[in-house]
Amino acid sequence: MSVRKKIWGKNAERIAEALERLDPDLARYIQDFAYEEVMARPGLDLKTRELLAITALIALGNPGELKTHLRGALANGATEREVRETIIHSALFLGFPRALGAMKVFSELLARTDERGA
Amino acid sequence: MSVRKKIWGKNAERIAEALERLDPDLARYIQDFAYEEVMARPGLDLKTRELLAITALIALGNPGELKTHLRGALANGATEREVRETIIHSALFLGFPRALGAMKVFSELLARTDERGA
Amino acid sequence: MSVRKKIWGKNAERIAEALERLDPDLARYIQDFAYEEVMARPGLDLKTRELLAITALIALGNPGELKTHLRGALANGATEREVRETIIHSALFLGFPRALGAMKVFSELLARTDERGA
Amino acid sequence: MSVRKKIWGKNAERIAEALERLDPDLARYIQDFAYEEVMARPGLDLKTRELLAITALIALGNPGELKTHLRGALANGATEREVRETIIHSALFLGFPRALGAMKVFSELLARTDERGA
Amino acid sequence: MSVRKKIWGKNAERIAEALERLDPDLARYIQDFAYEEVMARPGLDLKTRELLAITALIALGNPGELKTHLRGALANGATEREVRETIIHSALFLGFPRALGAMKVFSELLARTDERGA
Amino acid sequence: MSVRKKIWGKNAERIAEALERLDPDLARYIQDFAYEEVMARPGLDLKTRELLAITALIALGNPGELKTHLRGALANGATEREVRETIIHSALFLGFPRALGAMKVFSELLARTDERGA
Repeated sequence: MSVRKKIWGKNAERIAEALERLDPDLARYIQDFAYEEVMARPGLDLKTRELLAITALIALGNPGELKTHLRGALANGATEREVRETIIHSALFLGFPRALGAMKVFSELLARTDERGA
Repeated sequence: MSVRKKIWGKNAERIAEALERLDPDLARYIQDFAYEEVMARPGLDLKTRELLAITALIALGNPGELKTHLRGALANGATEREVRETIIHSALFLGFPRALGAMKVFSELLARTDERGA
Repeated sequence: MSVRKKIWGKNAERIAEALERLDPDLARYIQDFAYEEVMARPGLDLKTRELLAITALIALGNPGELKTHLRGALANGATEREVRETIIHSALFLGFPRALGAMKVFSELLARTDERGA
Repeated sequence: MSVRKKIWGKNAERIAEALERLDPDLARYIQDFAYEEVMARPGLDLKTRELLAITALIALGNPGELKTHLRGALANGATEREVRETIIHSALFLGFPRALGAMKVFSELLARTDERGA
Repeated sequence: MSVRKKIWGKNAERIAEALERLDPDLARYIQDFAYEEVMARPGLDLKTRELLAITALIALGNPGELKTHLRGALANGATEREVRETIIHSALFLGFPRALGAMKVFSELLARTDERGA
Repeated sequence: MSVRKKIWGKNAERIAEALERLDPDLARYIQDFAYEEVMARPGLDLKTRELLAITALIALGNPGELKTHLRGALANGATEREVRETIIHSALFLGFPRALGAMKVFSELLARTDERGA
C-alpha cells in the first residue's frame, strides 16, 4: 500500500484529485517525493513520522495540512492520548497559542468523527 | 531518576547550575514545569518526546537548545539513524535550509563524541 | 481577583469552560501556570504584559488568541491609542503584513464593541 | 502612475479607503513609505518585486496580503506560469505546506478571475 | 534629543557610521523612518516601546538587534527586573527556547556592563 | 552545466563533498531534487530564482545558506544593486531586523571578494 493511502485513508482519491487540479507539478512532487520517497523511508515508522509532522505544522501556525496529519497519525496507530500529548508537549517549545490552536483543530476533528460514528 | 537527569545525562549538574545563574525563576519554570511536569507526563515515551523536540527546534531555526535534545534523543534510546530520519523528514515541512542546518549541528555533535570515545 | 478574571473579564467563565472541554490538562497549564503563575508575577503590570502579548501574537501571525489579549489590554488600562501604537510599532520589527493583519482584528473588535455599546 | 495604482489596479481606490478607515497613520506608512518610497525604487522592476513579495508572504504563512501581491504580479507582467514557479520554488526553502497553501490561494484567485472573465 | 541618541546612547555615532557603511539607503530608512518617525510617535513611551521591541526580537529568534534594544530598554528607564520579566513572559507565547536564548544574551550584556563598571 | 555548478561556481566540488559527508541521503535530495529538478525548471530564470531564494532565507532568519544564494545570485547575472534592492525590499514584509541581518552578511561577502580580487 502506498504511503499516501496509509495516511490519507479513504480520502486518498479525493485528495489526489484535488492536488492534481491545483497544480500537476506540485502534486507530483508532494506525491512522489514527499510521500513515496521521503515519508516512505525506513528507519522511522509512519506513526512517529505523523507525530513529527504534527509538531512541524504546529510550528507553522496550524495550517490546513495539520488536519491531514492529525488524521494520518490516528490512522497509523497513534492513540488520541498520544496526539494530545504531542500537542501539549509542543507548548514548551512553541508557546501556548500554537498548542491551543492545534488542540482546537484536533477537537473539531474528533467531534466530527464521533458524529459520523454515532 | 528525574527527567532532567535522563535528558541532560552527565551534564545535568552543570546545565542546572548554568540555568540557575542565568535566572533563578526561568530556571525553576524550565526545570519544574517544562521537564518534571510536562516532559514527565505518561502517554508518550521520552525518546519520542525528544524527536518531537528536535523537530520543534528545527522549526525555530536550530537554536542552541537543539544540541541538548539531539543528545537527549540518543541518551533515551534513539539511534543515530532515527535522528537522521527525523532531520530529513523535517525538510518536507520546514524546507531544506532548516534541515541542513540541523544536520550540521548533529554532525558536529557526533564528531565530538567520536573523538572523546576514541 | 485572578489574573484570568482581569484579562478575560465577563467572558471568563465561558472561556474557562471551553478550555476545559478542549483538554483538561492543557487547560490547567494555561490557567494555573500561564495566567496565575507567570502573568501574575510582580515586576511588570498587566497592561504592559498585555501589550507584550499582543506583540508576540502579531509575530505568530495573529492567531485567535490575539483577540483575547487585545480585549485584555483594553480591560487593564490600555487606551485604544496605545493598542494602535503597539500594532504600528510592530511593523518595524515584523513587517507591514503582520501589523496590517493585527489592525484588522483590532478594528473588528472595536466595531463589535461599538455596536453593543450603542 | 503611482506604484499603488500599478499593483492594486482597479481595486486601488477601494483598498486605499479600507486602509484609511482601519488606521490613518498605518495607512500613510503603507502608502507613502512601503509603496511610493521603497517599492518605487529603481534597480528592480515591479514584476520581480511582486514575485519577491509573494515569497515573503508565503514565508509568513500566506496571510490575506498574499492575494494582493498575486494579483499585483499578474498585473505587472508576470505570467501565470511564473507565479506557479515562484510558489513551487518556495517549497524548497519553506516546506511543502507553505507552498501548498499558497497554491490554493492562487487557484481560487484564478477561478474567480475566470468566472468574471467568462 | 533624537530617538536614536536615546536608544543607542554613547554608541550612537558608532552605530550610525556602521549602518551608513553597510548601505546608505537602508541606513536612512532605519534612522529616518524606523527611529525618528515611528519610534518617535507619541502615545507610547520609549521604555514600553523597547520592551515591545525585545519581545518582537525574541520572536524572530534573538538576532543581533536584540542586544541594541536590551540596552535601549535599560537606557530609557526599564529596570533589570522589568527586562527579565519581559523575557520570562515571552516564554508563554513563544516557548522556552526563545526565552532562554534571550536570557543568555541579556546575561552576557549585564556581565560586560559590570566588568566595565568595576 | 548542472544547476549546482551554476550556483555554487568554483566551490561546487567542495560543497558537494561537504554535503556528502554530512548525510548522503539528504545530500542526494538537495542535489537531485532541490537543485537539478526544481531549481532547474524552466519558466523562471536562475537569477530570479536566486533573488527569491534570498528572500526566503531572510524570512528564515539569515541562516548559513543565505551566503550560498547571495553568491549564486551574483554568479547568475544579478548586480550588486539588485541584491541590495532585494534585501531592502524584504524589510517591508519581514521587518528591519531581518533585512539588516541580511545586509551584514552581504557586506561581509562583498568585502571578502574585494580582498581576494585586489
